[in-house]
Amino acid sequence: MTYCMGLKVSGGLVMLADTRTNAGVDNVSRFRKMFTWEVPGERAICLMTAGNLSLTQEVVTRIEDAIEAAEAGEEVPTILDAPTMFRVAEIVGGHMRETLANHREALIEQGAGADASVIVTGQRAGGEPRLFLVYAAGNFIEATDDTPYFQIGEHKYGKPILDRVITPETPLAAAMKAAFVSMDSTLRSNLSVGMPLDFAVIRAGECRFAVRRRIEPDDAEFSRISRMWSEALRAAFEALPGVDET
Amino acid sequence: MTYCMGLKVSGGLVMLADTRTNAGVDNVSRFRKMFTWEVPGERAICLMTAGNLSLTQEVVTRIEDAIEAAEAGEEVPTILDAPTMFRVAEIVGGHMRETLANHREALIEQGAGADASVIVTGQRAGGEPRLFLVYAAGNFIEATDDTPYFQIGEHKYGKPILDRVITPETPLAAAMKAAFVSMDSTLRSNLSVGMPLDFAVIRAGECRFAVRRRIEPDDAEFSRISRMWSEALRAAFEALPGVDET
Repeated sequence: MTYCMGLKVSGGLVMLADTRTNAGVDNVSRFRKMFTWEVPGERAICLMTAGNLSLTQEVVTRIEDAIEAAEAGEEVPTILDAPTMFRVAEIVGGHMRETLANHREALIEQGAGADASVIVTGQRAGGEPRLFLVYAAGNFIEATDDTPYFQIGEHKYGKPILDRVITPETPLAAAMKAAFVSMDSTLRSNLSVGMPLDFAVIRAGECRFAVRRRIEPDDAEFSRISRMWSEALRAAFEALPGVDET
Repeated sequence: MTYCMGLKVSGGLVMLADTRTNAGVDNVSRFRKMFTWEVPGERAICLMTAGNLSLTQEVVTRIEDAIEAAEAGEEVPTILDAPTMFRVAEIVGGHMRETLANHREALIEQGAGADASVIVTGQRAGGEPRLFLVYAAGNFIEATDDTPYFQIGEHKYGKPILDRVITPETPLAAAMKAAFVSMDSTLRSNLSVGMPLDFAVIRAGECRFAVRRRIEPDDAEFSRISRMWSEALRAAFEALPGVDET
């Protein structure tokens, strides 16, 4: 399984992804699911992937190959020269569509999962921070003020806190906390989502990564929030009034 | 969908079930999923059902038919004369197996869900309070000190609070609160779980229902706990330390 989320608030973008993959419960591995590209001050782009790992790895490889080909002088559209984040999402969607076209039939014949999804987010100079969710067919949706976040993978355990906290006006610092709490709830409840995590933040207008780091299992900051949240939940529960027993 | 839970603590048994069923998102109905039988002081039995409604309704009808047949003098085993709660679970499992045997093939041909599950719980005089989960094949498992609760249907949203709170030593009143909070989280996050609710409590040793009531959407007690829990979560979240932004 997987759990990745992208949150868009007026102050910027918050991205958090786990690294656990599993082919059955007895075959658990660690793979990066967050990928970033940065031309500081000009553009910062973050992708997070879920679904069949062979498909999402191929999508990322196609993105990288296109960048290399363009650097070598070929006329290919890349996410680094796309004029808008919308166009970046289109390019990722195109790679997704081609990848699925190559593999869908054989995967289905084999009874394997032929599904994948990618959160595409970032900002380029002159544009707004934007957040997209690209589906296996290459089509995509964009986060709006009504739904300012996307989740992929195991979304249920971490959704309630996002629903309660995340609005476009949520301060960036609170969105970062909410991402930690959302991931913490998921790590506790679903063994197929696991540490370490990849964490990234883009402040609106900066077009660079303010934060881009790996969170290891012994991370002091994450552990502290996890422990304090656990204690606060217990205290909140204790403080609730009793239920009438008659 | 559905969400039902049964909690077993040393003080007794707590049961809570929603009433929403849906055949597609455009065909939502209300059906009771909690069924109780009581011979006060001798036995109190509670069933909660999830899965294909036609199957679980037939299981309950078979249970009722057996009770009527026994009252009319036939020699059939019933949940009201079973010597143990284990035997009650066996009888329910038998009805489940026969019901599925009649319908499984046609349901699968039709592409419909041929799955169902039943939480069976209660106490009879001379025995302990017991909690079972009966599967579609008629087999069943029993709650233990390690896992003192069962959920059926949409279990994810309401699981974290049960995991944090419910142990065999949890006071009965706290288990009742936890059931409310668990259901409240699920109602908020999954539209296919809905009010009204059916709520029942059996205190250990009493072999009767201490509580057996319907909770309507305007229920003052449930609303108060829902509102206070929401406020407490917000306050707890606000009180968390910030995340380092560098």
